Amino acid sequence: LAIIDAKAESADKGEYRHFMLKEIYEQPSVIRRSLAGRLGSKTVLAEALGARANEILSQVENVQIVACGTSYHAGMVAKYWIEGIAGVPCRVEVASEFRYRKFKVHNNTLLVTISQSGETADTLAALRLAKTLGYSATMTICNVALSSLVRESDLFLMTEAGPEIGVASTKAFTTQLVALLLLTVALGRHHDLKAEQEQEIVAALHKLPQLITETLGLDSAIQQMSNAFAEKHHALFLGRGAQWPVAMEGALKLKEISYIHAESYPAGELKHGPLALIDADMPVIAVAPNDELLEKLKSNLEEVRARGGQLFVFADKNSGFSSANAVEILELPHTEDVIAPIVYTIPLQLLSYHVAILKGTDVDQPRNLAKSVTVE
Amino acid sequence: LAIIDAKAESADKGEYRHFMLKEIYEQPSVIRRSLAGRLGSKTVLAEALGARANEILSQVENVQIVACGTSYHAGMVAKYWIEGIAGVPCRVEVASEFRYRKFKVHNNTLLVTISQSGETADTLAALRLAKTLGYSATMTICNVALSSLVRESDLFLMTEAGPEIGVASTKAFTTQLVALLLLTVALGRHHDLKAEQEQEIVAALHKLPQLITETLGLDSAIQQMSNAFAEKHHALFLGRGAQWPVAMEGALKLKEISYIHAESYPAGELKHGPLALIDADMPVIAVAPNDELLEKLKSNLEEVRARGGQLFVFADKNSGFSSANAVEILELPHTEDVIAPIVYTIPLQLLSYHVAILKGTDVDQPRNLAKSVTVE
Repeated sequence: LAIIDAKAESADKGEYRHFMLKEIYEQPSVIRRSLAGRLGSKTVLAEALGARANEILSQVENVQIVACGTSYHAGMVAKYWIEGIAGVPCRVEVASEFRYRKFKVHNNTLLVTISQSGETADTLAALRLAKTLGYSATMTICNVALSSLVRESDLFLMTEAGPEIGVASTKAFTTQLVALLLLTVALGRHHDLKAEQEQEIVAALHKLPQLITETLGLDSAIQQMSNAFAEKHHALFLGRGAQWPVAMEGALKLKEISYIHAESYPAGELKHGPLALIDADMPVIAVAPNDELLEKLKSNLEEVRARGGQLFVFADKNSGFSSANAVEILELPHTEDVIAPIVYTIPLQLLSYHVAILKGTDVDQPRNLAKSVTVE
Repeated sequence: LAIIDAKAESADKGEYRHFMLKEIYEQPSVIRRSLAGRLGSKTVLAEALGARANEILSQVENVQIVACGTSYHAGMVAKYWIEGIAGVPCRVEVASEFRYRKFKVHNNTLLVTISQSGETADTLAALRLAKTLGYSATMTICNVALSSLVRESDLFLMTEAGPEIGVASTKAFTTQLVALLLLTVALGRHHDLKAEQEQEIVAALHKLPQLITETLGLDSAIQQMSNAFAEKHHALFLGRGAQWPVAMEGALKLKEISYIHAESYPAGELKHGPLALIDADMPVIAVAPNDELLEKLKSNLEEVRARGGQLFVFADKNSGFSSANAVEILELPHTEDVIAPIVYTIPLQLLSYHVAILKGTDVDQPRNLAKSVTVE
């Protein structure tokens, strides 16, 4: 298996038209590899986070995550997990903000940095600053061995995404999420996580690669859907809870490679301003695996329709929600809540890819952007 | 003075074309009134936050702010103040997110809600939920006496903005900021705030109404600037530190009343994605009172220029920054850092107003929006 993976990740597009598409399709295999040796049949293995992890994590009472761009979105998802599942207070901040302001550090706070390259300038500077501020320990979630973040952190958890060539991050993001869920479990054991919950999360993680493979099967339906965006210059992505950062990441992907001005909002904020923007030129994309959000969305639908807006909803196939005039539903396989942010990222990656193809942009090398932001 | 103010705030546009413009111009007087009886010559008066405030605030070790829309942006500014000046850890969350997730509450956490109407559905529900979660006390910053939030909170600090008729909030926001700065001082006394710092903040607050009057004097220059936005459908607002939420609020104003798709970013995140969007159709507005941000912005300017983008910078007149090809600078009076978020809000309000006039929208009653969001 290791040999096959090594081939799959070589810097060669193989059968794919772009690196980005290849990297989207690699996600089942790289997530499987990110879990290998870390996931037992019912538990996250003790050695998953390294030899010192247990000693360090047993002391942790707070978490501070620092990151930029896509990695920041991974941190935002992790906040919902770390607070909701592990029961540990968690803050997340953009590295360029964290560096330049004053604040108090709670006792026994673990500083977690997230970066694909391990060399992101603001994130690295934040780590170095943090060492002077009284954090109890530092950890990084990173894709590059021997990078500065890995070398300078007390703990590291490598994402096994392999080299990511496309500037718009895809497999690095979802493997970051997998790593952060492993961290949530490892931390939760010392706090609120019960053994049966751990078993449920582990079972969900075992199913994850296959669920992503099934979700990738929606590719042609998503390609079809992408036609609705070919002439558009705006898009609004909505999510609630841990799907809000997924919406943020979906909007960022569309921005980065299709140059469509896509923005995200937590769905509950729609009435507090962005609703004024909704018209026929502003499609709305909702990431809504659970029924609670779907129910709340229904009242927004009438407003969106009344303005001639088009709504696209990615929903659980068991949600009982059906397509109607000006509402297109794309059904995903049924997914346990905990891993839904990972699964629902996939269709948004595919959507941005297909829209970019229609727009004729340079998918792997979008204008103005660099793969690793190693300057401020 | 009380009688004059009562007249000024009556539900009549007087000499102004719209309520929103009248309310923008009322800001020096309503801020003066928000400070009256609360600000001594060198200190914030003990009675400013009510009889029980001192007893309650002396116990506070953490702050959790919950709000929606514009009030959420006020809370975001306050986070920089409460952590940076008072030295108290502070979290801010959108009410519709706060309500629907699990998290741990730190010991001795004050829950602060912010709402113009005091009836915002999600914020009120968040307050009621919070009472079951172990917060040590609750406080509201509110503009309507006897509203639900005021009646149901342990402490309240009224913004003295008077009735706000325009749907897009202006004077309610800046008086919320004033109230939050008073709270920062009152809280800071029990923590990191030194007497001399308090004197400096109080001196700055005494100067604030006059500074806002001077800033309103830029109205015709801003009206001139607004022509550049008449044909635009996009805008990007950048800020750093406590000016990031000011940029968020500037973007929201433009969204709400001109229907331009305006978005905000912390300036340091520009390279992590949004830079791909920059072209001649996407003007960039930067709120940059301090030199540190100006220096960092300069490297972004070349990118913006190279894409044919237009940059508009609101900067301190002492910044030594000058207009150039594709960079328009609007100089504001010199302002102490602490009150800069309040002062720099004013030109963004005026900009959104004048752009909306050019666009021919209904300034006081923007489409799809209600003044108070009393349903979910």
